[in-house]
Parts: sequence; C-alpha cells; structure tokens
Amino acid sequence: MSDKGGRERLVVIGGDAAGMSAASQARRMRKPDELEIVAFERGHFTSYSACGIPYWVSGDVGERDELIARTPEEHRERDIDLRTRTEVVEIDPERRAVRTRDLDAGTEAWTGYDKLVIATGARPVRPDMPGMDAPGVHGVQTLDDGQALLDSLALDRGRRAVVVGAGYIGVEMAEALIKRGYEVTVVNRGSEPMSTLDPDMGRLVHRAMEGLGITMVGGAEVTEVRTGDDGRVRSVVTRDAEYPADVVVLGIGVRPETGLARAAGLPLGAHGGLRTDLGMRVRGHEDIWAGGDCVEVVNLVSGREQYVPLGTHANKHGQIIGTNAGGGYATFPGVVGTAVSKVCDLEIARTGLREKDAERVGLRFETVTIESTSRAGYYPGASPMTVKMLAERGTGRLLGVQIVGREGAAKRVDVAAVALTAGMTVERMTALDLGYAPPFSPVWDPVLVAARKATAKVRG
Amino acid sequence: MSDKGGRERLVVIGGDAAGMSAASQARRMRKPDELEIVAFERGHFTSYSACGIPYWVSGDVGERDELIARTPEEHRERDIDLRTRTEVVEIDPERRAVRTRDLDAGTEAWTGYDKLVIATGARPVRPDMPGMDAPGVHGVQTLDDGQALLDSLALDRGRRAVVVGAGYIGVEMAEALIKRGYEVTVVNRGSEPMSTLDPDMGRLVHRAMEGLGITMVGGAEVTEVRTGDDGRVRSVVTRDAEYPADVVVLGIGVRPETGLARAAGLPLGAHGGLRTDLGMRVRGHEDIWAGGDCVEVVNLVSGREQYVPLGTHANKHGQIIGTNAGGGYATFPGVVGTAVSKVCDLEIARTGLREKDAERVGLRFETVTIESTSRAGYYPGASPMTVKMLAERGTGRLLGVQIVGREGAAKRVDVAAVALTAGMTVERMTALDLGYAPPFSPVWDPVLVAARKATAKVRG
Repeated sequence: MSDKGGRERLVVIGGDAAGMSAASQARRMRKPDELEIVAFERGHFTSYSACGIPYWVSGDVGERDELIARTPEEHRERDIDLRTRTEVVEIDPERRAVRTRDLDAGTEAWTGYDKLVIATGARPVRPDMPGMDAPGVHGVQTLDDGQALLDSLALDRGRRAVVVGAGYIGVEMAEALIKRGYEVTVVNRGSEPMSTLDPDMGRLVHRAMEGLGITMVGGAEVTEVRTGDDGRVRSVVTRDAEYPADVVVLGIGVRPETGLARAAGLPLGAHGGLRTDLGMRVRGHEDIWAGGDCVEVVNLVSGREQYVPLGTHANKHGQIIGTNAGGGYATFPGVVGTAVSKVCDLEIARTGLREKDAERVGLRFETVTIESTSRAGYYPGASPMTVKMLAERGTGRLLGVQIVGREGAAKRVDVAAVALTAGMTVERMTALDLGYAPPFSPVWDPVLVAARKATAKVRG
Repeated sequence: MSDKGGRERLVVIGGDAAGMSAASQARRMRKPDELEIVAFERGHFTSYSACGIPYWVSGDVGERDELIARTPEEHRERDIDLRTRTEVVEIDPERRAVRTRDLDAGTEAWTGYDKLVIATGARPVRPDMPGMDAPGVHGVQTLDDGQALLDSLALDRGRRAVVVGAGYIGVEMAEALIKRGYEVTVVNRGSEPMSTLDPDMGRLVHRAMEGLGITMVGGAEVTEVRTGDDGRVRSVVTRDAEYPADVVVLGIGVRPETGLARAAGLPLGAHGGLRTDLGMRVRGHEDIWAGGDCVEVVNLVSGREQYVPLGTHANKHGQIIGTNAGGGYATFPGVVGTAVSKVCDLEIARTGLREKDAERVGLRFETVTIESTSRAGYYPGASPMTVKMLAERGTGRLLGVQIVGREGAAKRVDVAAVALTAGMTVERMTALDLGYAPPFSPVWDPVLVAARKATAKVRG
C-alpha cells in the first residue's frame, strides 16, 4: 500500500485508549510524509475514559466531555486521519486490507494497509433472558451507554435501582446510584462481591457495603427482567425472589470483541482474546498488532495467559504498539493482576494470585491476614485496613496481596505489585524501606506487617 | 554471666524503638528461664513515637500517652526487667559489664551481660552560641522535650514562633505552630528547605510553605538567640536580620549518641554512628548488637554507609537484633533512603540518591521532572504533583525519586523504593502494573510518567 513516495499506511481499528495511543505514538515516531495513519471508530468519541463513566453518572464528574482525553478533531490536528461512525466489518490479511462501513451513509469501502492495529475493545456480557433489552436496563461500557443511563435516571420514575453483578463496575455503579439518592440492591451470582478477591476478603466488602446502606444479595441467579405496562423495566427476578427496580445496571463483565479477528483467522486464546508476542504483534503476523481489551496478556506470577480488560493496560499496549509500528522497539512483559476500586469510602485492592489461581497452576502456598491502620494509630483519621498475603511454600516467594480498608488502603497494593514483578520473597519484603511518617503509615507499614507474618509462617 | 541454671543475660541500653523492639523480640524467641532481659532507660518513658511529637504539639494528638506504644509496666509484664531513670555510663566489653547510675538515688552499680544491645539513639544538634539554652528555646527529640515546649506555649506570651532549620522536623513543627495559631518564620541555612531534596524540588516546598502563610528565610545563619529582661527568648538573630520570637523550636538535626560506644572502643563510622554487620552485630564483637538512631546503615543504591535516624528503621533493627540475640537468624540488608513528610496539605517524599549523592559516588545520570495529578484529571480532588527521577546513564538503572504534591503524593514514593531495592531500570518500571482507577490515579500513574520520560532520555 506504500504510495509512490514510499510512504507507508498504518490502519488502526478502534478509537479509544489502545488504538489512539498507538496512533499517537506512531505519529511521534514517524512524520506524515513517512507514515500515513488512518483510524476507524464506529462510535462518535475517541480516547475517552470508560472507567470514568460511574463518576459521571454519580455527578462527581459534571460533563461527559471531561472524560474525553482527546477529541477526533484533536487527533486530526496531529495528522491522524480519523474516521468516526465508520465500522470495520472485515479484515483481509491476505490482501492487507480492511472493509469499512460508513454507519451514517450506509456505504462500504476497502482500505489497504501496510501495518494494522486491532484495538476493538470489549463488549459487555448481556445474558440472553427475557426483558434484558427493555428500556431502563443499562450497560455502562461506552459514553453512549452512560448517556442513555443518565437519560433514564432523568425520567425520575422512582428511586429503586438494581445492579446486577458485584465486580468492579457493579460496586462503582452502586456508589454512583447511592450518591444520586437511590435505594440500591446489588444482585450477585457469587456468595460474596468482588470475585477477584478471595471469598474471605470479599466478605469484608460485603459487610462494608451493607454498612453503606446497599442491599447485597449473594448467590442469586437472575432469571428474568420484568417490565411494566409501559414496557419499561419493573423488577429483576431471581430463582428465589423479585426485586422492584426503576432502573437496572448491568455489571456482569465484558468479553473481548474479537469477531473480526476470528473471521480473519487470527489466533485467539482460551479467553477469546487475541494472542500476541511481547511486542504486541499478533502471533504469526509480522505487520498486525493488537492491544487493549481485545487481547490476552501473560500473568507474570502464574505464567499463564489471562484476560484483563483495564484502561491502564490498554494505554501501555498502545504505547508499545505505536513504538514498534513506528519502527522502534518496545515490549509489554505482562501483568501481575493489579486492580483497585472504591465504593464510597471503602477501598478495595488486589494484585497477583488468589488462592484459587495459585491452586489452579499447582502452587503450594501459605496465607496470612492481618489488621492494621492507614496512619499511625494515634494520628487523626487512622482507619483500619485488612491485608491478606499469599506466599509460596518453601521459597517464600510473594504470590498475591489483597487489601480492604478506607482512605489510604488501596494504593498500598502497588508495593506488592512491584515486589511481584521483581519476584521478591516475603522475607525480603520485610526489609523494604517504605515511607514512614505518622500521617502516612504506622511505623510498620501494613504491607510489611503482613510480610513479617507470612515470613514466619513460611519458615514454619 | 550465665547463672547456675545456664540462663543467659541480655542487657539492653535504651528503652525506645530499637532497644525495646529487640528486647520484645528476644523475649518472643526465648523464655525467661532461658534468657534474662534487663533494659536500662535514662528517661521516664519507653517505646514512644518521637516522630509523633509534632502532632501532639499541634493538638492533632490529644494526649502524650497516645504516643506511647508500650509502657515500662507493660514491658515488665512481659518479663523484661526494665529500669527507667537509670543511665548507663560505661560499657566494659572486656569484663562484659555495664556501669549504671540511678538518676534519682545517685547510686552506681555494675551489671554483667552475656549479650548486649546498644540502642542509645540520637541527640539533637544544639549550636554553641549565646542564648541557645534560654527558656523558650526548644528541641523536640523526646517526650520530655515535647512537654517542655507545650508548657512554654501555655504561657501564651505572644504568637510569634521561629523554627530554626527546615528539614523534616522543622517543616512538621512549622505546621504544628501554624495550627496553634502562631505566626511562623522558618530560618534555614540552605537556600531552600528540605535539603534531603535537590534544590529544584526544595524550591517547590519553599513556595508551597509560603502559600500556607509561613515566612521562609533561606541562606540565613543564626548567630545568636537574644533574651528579654525576664531571661526568656526574645528574638533570633542571623547575620543579616533579627526575627522577634516568643518561642523558638530547633529543627537542625541530630547526631548519633555514641559517646559510650566511643569510650568503649567500639567501631564508629564517618558519620559518628556505630558500624554493624548485616545481623546488626557491632563489627568485631560477637555478642554486642546495635540499632536505631545510633548506627550507620548501608545505602543499597550508593553502596555507602549513611546516617538515617528514623523510627521505622529503628523498629526493624530491633526486630533483627532480637531475633539474632534470641538465637535465630535475620539480617537488615540496608536502606534506600526513603522519607516522607507533610506540612499542612503539602506532601513531600524522596527515596534513593539526590543529584549530589550520585555525583559523590561517581555515578553519571539523567534527570527528568514531570507534572501529573494524584487522581484522574476529571475526578474531584485531583491535585497536582511533581515527580523528579534520576536514572543511571547507559544502564538506565533507577537511582532516585523525589515527589512534591498534595494528598496522595507522598506514599507513591514506595513504588520507587521497591524498584530501587530490586535494582530495576526505569524502562522496566514503565511496564509496572500499578493500581489504576479514576479516584486513585490517572491512567498513567505519575511515577510511570516519570519513568517513561526517563527511559526516553536514557535511550537518548
């Protein structure tokens, strides 16, 4: 596809974090007379923070546009030929071309590429059951979804909200709706919320959320969404009960959006995400990269591939892809599975492996759970914090950390994330020189208290 | 000194963090019928948080006793023979005995030991100049010092306070006095406050402290403290000016309290602190350990010995010493030089080497400084943060990080502290899987933004 001047063309599918980070970084590496960059986005928006949607719904963020890091116009000013409302409907790796559809005009066209970036993101899981598509039932994956939910809330038909699913999105949306004055019921399939934590830590979240006035229903499988005479949602039905609902929010996770890739014969992993090498190249395809919510990544602790849709990874992938597609060299070594979340003043964090993850890959381990505080016990605002730590039996290698607490709890998980990346033992961690002053930490940081106890347990 | 039953005696000199942590840990390891533990403390108090004194003075901590983690009585209940108001005045390593003085009775006695722990702490620097001992001039090293300052403030003779020195203690005391409604002037020898930071970062602290209403005087050498007719402090005089003062607080640092050790011929380092091995044994003395503010420690980044008086290290040393003196095995590998501090809502953090530290040990390096925010830019309460990073030229190894910001800034330095401990390059850091959600971080954590920029600079 190189034009007469030898100029190459980079085509990007998907205009959010991974795709536009890749495009921007490639543009930094190569001038427009060397590399043409064409990006296709089926929606209206580019480079927005989907993670910010709950805070827009809650009212903490006043305007939708605050969530947009870079508009289509700003990308175009940087010599990226960005086409919104244009969906890629086919990839032909043989011909090195993509078929696109203009969603407004309804027309189709082929565009050739020298290099291709697939950043098609994720799609929300929507169980196939009656009423799931009724007005008043909302996903929260895109800005358009967020706007639809806000429009629904503006109808002001009642103050009862049901959130289906108690993962990150579920708990964040519970907070958003509490802040808007709703009575919130969270209906969850698992017995405890936050299945990314071990159940004993999930129980702490459960209790704390109830303390915030949220009704938590665990072990409940939704079977139906009932609608009223007006066709709008009226209640959520489980095997055992019925929960009246004026609005329903779905927080039951996402799947990689890899239909195009599958149809093109590109390699997918066990979780349905694209498989790439360390440079984020699609395996077996020298000129195709993929990143963000449509790929699988290596978990550096377990050594296995995993699906972790998260904006921070998408941005890193984009950076790596843009560097490589621009002729440079960069790699994404993998993740350790860090995630943090907040519901009102409750902070939740995890990194590394849960007990069941460690068991699944055949690791033997010890666990400890400790209670400590965010600041010196005598300093105002010191709040309790529970830290759970997993360490490999014998070697003492750190395997995972989970934290539930209040202000100052969640970001402490970063210490464990770095230690996991470095393959540290819990004993080595006990000597870590972490910042200490009474407003910031007890003299033994909670993470160190856990590491000490884990060391003692590993040593037997 | 073993008595008939073969019971050994452990003598501890100093009843604060290092000494009593050592005693407590040795007690956990060995029962009273195996190990007798005798601890001497010249003051009234044990196991207190000297770092908490500024917050007691400010009123944030209501009662002195909240700063005491364990009283003499509590130690005695754990079978530690603790003797307060008893000063050790001589160590005789040949005879394995210490000479003590009962400060109330005035009597002296010798006590033999099988194992000795030296935890004599630090003493504040008090320049030898007129008026330095006048009433109204206060150090803040001990609980007794804190009480004397509070008594002085209670006299309510005026609202003008001068703090001499703008290190950690100086800035924390400036906050304490601002909170008590004083007009605060900080007089500092260096041109910028916080000489533990590079001057460019110190300048940010300077500006922020002025913004808090604190008068900052840099490059000023105090020559005299003038007193009034009543003999109390009246002003602080520098070469160029005179600053009226109703109360003066000294924050010009501390030196290791190693007079006893020096007289006993024990090995001291260039900074005047005791030199130990990794097990915190005094070098060349199998049965003497030392820890806390009276020892030097290895900086793992520079490989040089350093003097870092800090409660968190003292507690770790005590833990290591108690384990070893109790017949176990543990080591203290060293520090990376992490410190965090707070003045009103300003947070200050550093770890690793400053520019001048790196130069001194012959390291060539690159520096970058970036601006970011504590939370996603659109999330309420996102506050600006400046991160400076040093990386070794060529290898790209992380050498140091300094952070100045508001809420959520300081503890981010822990990520760099762990990375320094692991010897990571800044490029490896760019891929760190740090916790991301809008209330906690921008999608690129500020530390990662700095690492990216440092990587680009190292790569040239």
